[in-house]
Amino acid sequence: MRYAYLGPEGTFTEAAVASLNLGAEADPVPYPTVGAALTAIRGGQAERGVIPIESSVEGIVTATVDDLTTGGGVRIHGEIRLPIAFALLAAAGTSLADVKTVGGHPQAQPQCRRWLAANLPRAEWVAQASNGEAARQVAEGKLDAALAGEFAAAKYGISVLAPDVHDNTRAVTRFVVVAPETVPEPEPTRSDRTSVAAFLRDDYPGALMEILTEFAVRGINLSTIQSRPTGDRLGSYFFFVDCEGHIRDARVGEAMMGLRRVCADIRFLGSYPRCDGGRTHVRPGTSDAEFASAAAWLTGLRGGRG
Amino acid sequence: MRYAYLGPEGTFTEAAVASLNLGAEADPVPYPTVGAALTAIRGGQAERGVIPIESSVEGIVTATVDDLTTGGGVRIHGEIRLPIAFALLAAAGTSLADVKTVGGHPQAQPQCRRWLAANLPRAEWVAQASNGEAARQVAEGKLDAALAGEFAAAKYGISVLAPDVHDNTRAVTRFVVVAPETVPEPEPTRSDRTSVAAFLRDDYPGALMEILTEFAVRGINLSTIQSRPTGDRLGSYFFFVDCEGHIRDARVGEAMMGLRRVCADIRFLGSYPRCDGGRTHVRPGTSDAEFASAAAWLTGLRGGRG
Amino acid sequence: MRYAYLGPEGTFTEAAVASLNLGAEADPVPYPTVGAALTAIRGGQAERGVIPIESSVEGIVTATVDDLTTGGGVRIHGEIRLPIAFALLAAAGTSLADVKTVGGHPQAQPQCRRWLAANLPRAEWVAQASNGEAARQVAEGKLDAALAGEFAAAKYGISVLAPDVHDNTRAVTRFVVVAPETVPEPEPTRSDRTSVAAFLRDDYPGALMEILTEFAVRGINLSTIQSRPTGDRLGSYFFFVDCEGHIRDARVGEAMMGLRRVCADIRFLGSYPRCDGGRTHVRPGTSDAEFASAAAWLTGLRGGRG
Amino acid sequence: MRYAYLGPEGTFTEAAVASLNLGAEADPVPYPTVGAALTAIRGGQAERGVIPIESSVEGIVTATVDDLTTGGGVRIHGEIRLPIAFALLAAAGTSLADVKTVGGHPQAQPQCRRWLAANLPRAEWVAQASNGEAARQVAEGKLDAALAGEFAAAKYGISVLAPDVHDNTRAVTRFVVVAPETVPEPEPTRSDRTSVAAFLRDDYPGALMEILTEFAVRGINLSTIQSRPTGDRLGSYFFFVDCEGHIRDARVGEAMMGLRRVCADIRFLGSYPRCDGGRTHVRPGTSDAEFASAAAWLTGLRGGRG
Repeated sequence: MRYAYLGPEGTFTEAAVASLNLGAEADPVPYPTVGAALTAIRGGQAERGVIPIESSVEGIVTATVDDLTTGGGVRIHGEIRLPIAFALLAAAGTSLADVKTVGGHPQAQPQCRRWLAANLPRAEWVAQASNGEAARQVAEGKLDAALAGEFAAAKYGISVLAPDVHDNTRAVTRFVVVAPETVPEPEPTRSDRTSVAAFLRDDYPGALMEILTEFAVRGINLSTIQSRPTGDRLGSYFFFVDCEGHIRDARVGEAMMGLRRVCADIRFLGSYPRCDGGRTHVRPGTSDAEFASAAAWLTGLRGGRG
Repeated sequence: MRYAYLGPEGTFTEAAVASLNLGAEADPVPYPTVGAALTAIRGGQAERGVIPIESSVEGIVTATVDDLTTGGGVRIHGEIRLPIAFALLAAAGTSLADVKTVGGHPQAQPQCRRWLAANLPRAEWVAQASNGEAARQVAEGKLDAALAGEFAAAKYGISVLAPDVHDNTRAVTRFVVVAPETVPEPEPTRSDRTSVAAFLRDDYPGALMEILTEFAVRGINLSTIQSRPTGDRLGSYFFFVDCEGHIRDARVGEAMMGLRRVCADIRFLGSYPRCDGGRTHVRPGTSDAEFASAAAWLTGLRGGRG
Repeated sequence: MRYAYLGPEGTFTEAAVASLNLGAEADPVPYPTVGAALTAIRGGQAERGVIPIESSVEGIVTATVDDLTTGGGVRIHGEIRLPIAFALLAAAGTSLADVKTVGGHPQAQPQCRRWLAANLPRAEWVAQASNGEAARQVAEGKLDAALAGEFAAAKYGISVLAPDVHDNTRAVTRFVVVAPETVPEPEPTRSDRTSVAAFLRDDYPGALMEILTEFAVRGINLSTIQSRPTGDRLGSYFFFVDCEGHIRDARVGEAMMGLRRVCADIRFLGSYPRCDGGRTHVRPGTSDAEFASAAAWLTGLRGGRG
Repeated sequence: MRYAYLGPEGTFTEAAVASLNLGAEADPVPYPTVGAALTAIRGGQAERGVIPIESSVEGIVTATVDDLTTGGGVRIHGEIRLPIAFALLAAAGTSLADVKTVGGHPQAQPQCRRWLAANLPRAEWVAQASNGEAARQVAEGKLDAALAGEFAAAKYGISVLAPDVHDNTRAVTRFVVVAPETVPEPEPTRSDRTSVAAFLRDDYPGALMEILTEFAVRGINLSTIQSRPTGDRLGSYFFFVDCEGHIRDARVGEAMMGLRRVCADIRFLGSYPRCDGGRTHVRPGTSDAEFASAAAWLTGLRGGRG
């Protein structure tokens, strides 16, 4: 089974793939962009994908959310959470005093800002397409040092000049495992997350509260909500939402139908086990059994009870 | 078909029965109380009932709401609205100066207060069980005059001493037609009302907003809401609610199921054509077609679209 | 100081006055109706009033709520809660077998229905204007027995034939102490109640939720909400509301201003200590100190902080 | 007066500064990053700043929102909206066939994706720090072509090879004019916007609805809402909100105080005239006059009306 991931080798996304312990039969294939990885799945060049979706520092990965939402054809089947630990990598024997240029993904620099200011105040920052690419350029002698995960050092034959150079020791990134929409959803586990993109029908005040109410009235907790421009004009948004529960839970299904009715458009992006293991909170009155009991009661009412 | 109504003859409720134009095969039977009329239906002594449920002056008729809610076994099948016009009835030949005592239902007196103060300031008010009973006592010479509908004069062989003695010329009373719950519901007409009694699960702040939200999120307008004590303790209520629409409307059915899930108890009291002819307002996203389309979409999602 | 109360002597309202332990200088004066008692206060014939406002069995006393709301000129200054215990009173030497007629306030009969059915199944019920009046008629030999509080027996020189004949042993009635609006409000005690009547601006769906939101957004719990017809037409209501807290609490004051702005009309009926001693729940973010701090912050923002 | 703007010369931000028609006494000074421009204002090296805050294509400019929110010391005093029109710039005499490399800001490429795919399918994309920098590199012969505004051509002595190469002809960017917080706010104009950042007190379900309710209950429309990670952990957000109205409007002031009370933290970012000229919608019950009238009423109630 081929796994398309956001490459190149030596990035945190590759580390996320590795954390799946897929074994020998899996074949991880790096792609240069999120879009390219998703396109590979849609086109059948890969059966699964692993891409970042949220960083505690930068927030939602907009390329991922936008492409999942507008591209269609794929669904989220799982998620992975990794602590983000940067090291400063350089060729063996390099000292801090030797480092005039430092490369990495554009998001790497702000996450290591304080360490860089304290230890390499005069080094030039050279943004690269990825941390792995920066490490590769160090290996090729085009950069003095790279910000990347320690695991990238072995990959490119370079050394860890300084470990743990990130400012925020609690930084984490969440990745999603993606599959073609023809693959059956993972079974409900009572510890699930559902992702959805909702397009407001009108740009009227209260439209967002209307969407939130569809969840709240059915006791569904949201874990993420993020507005994204539709690109049409300023102030025109869709909302990317993560909520607790599985599409096959009665309350989640009914909320999805509610969104479908009141929104201009709605894209179901997947239901999958949560990586943090947290159990879904089921408020009194919103369990599957209570939904089933209410439905039976209504059927009785409508049919006449005599 | 026997119609149990709140009697005796000569009351506004009898006038409401008459307004149904039932023809010769119907048999109106007066009962002394709302409870007695409903008990007759439950026991098979009558097939239908007509009882008052709301007055524009006094509000909800609590005996009706309480008995429908707690007694069970019957459902509302229709409603009738009558303007309430009081006349002063007396024996033929009586003049205002002769009237020392005036009788009527306890609610008749406040509705004619100004006229009585201006025209009969010294007459003694003698509350009776009903306006019809007051007219009967006039006929028997036990009272000088009665407040009742003009139609009661002919019934009891007395005269209209003064017509239209009520202060509020817009006063109306709403009556409901009741049938055993084994009789099939009237068909939806796009101009329906649904009555329900909801018992709060807990006496917590926000419980009422929770109930209202179950209607609001599905675009259902309420026409009446009235709290009634459950009798257990101060501050313990159930809510009697009239809403637009029919139990077989998808949005009303889903709202009923929502109430069933979040309330301690819920009593469905009937879906029936509105007497005022107003069409049900269907907010975008809440039509039966939109509910059906959303359900089909969800089924597709859950089954996998491949 | 004269206390106008809903008489006559021997009613539960007189018992409520007695529970105030007013001492010798107070002069309780019975009035035949709630309206008469309130009119006496407005006209200066009495300085205080005691009238029933809510029964756990029958709910809000509509005459009280309607007159307080529309009559103006007075405010609630306190409340009293009494358990309602009925006895069957009769002339000394009477036995149950002698009782052919039983009188009392119309609400007394339903509260003793089961006892009457079991013990006096054939006795005729004769509604009276009050329980005290029924006791008086027993004393005068016009009725065989009366449903009233035990305390009425001594008052009218009759006996307790059977104590505790009420079906619901938890039945209570709440009374309010009323004063002219020129008398300063009781001081806040952290265990207060505020009563208000709100008239909806329009009869549109959601108007009630709008009113409830004015309370909810400021963390104010409601203890009673009751719709009352305005008398204009079916479905036109005002809402009588009891909430926790005192008009001088910042959050209650702001909620009152919110109601004043969004309602067609609002009548403040008083802030007074709760009879049940329950402390007001103050949600985080809604204390007086937090309101004051937020106001100081806003003043700083508007003035420029430089 | 010195204007710090996101440079270098030849960017759309410089075009936004030019649109202010500041005259000769103003001195626009380019800064390499949003943070550098804001730091210059805070440190007194500039009196005003112009930076992009929202793009219809990419959404909120996170660097701007994050720095305004966490850096403090400055406020938004105005806004500017510019249509974003890209041209392909090259040295005079260059033809499309000559273009092997194209540079520009990373956001320029996705906005011209279709044109590039159709006209320069084989050209290499070379991301630059800004469109102006790309134009400069074209002038220096390091790049064959640049995506930038037409106005950049004259600035760098190069030519417009193709105008209007952007895919979305309605793309606009909104810029804000920033001043030190010691400078008095612009006066209310009835066509104002207020920007604020709200940090949730707890990460509990319903916290976002609580914030939205503070606006909704006072009839305030939101034009933007955007969650931003606080950086602490996944799912911990603050919300950047643009609403209609001015901090000195009574309803906006009260909403700000409400947020101050219920949020963990709140940062007022400025009240300023809207660039689109739209008038503020004032819902019945929320005008300054109605707030003042309600406050006078409350003062009367609390003081006693006698």
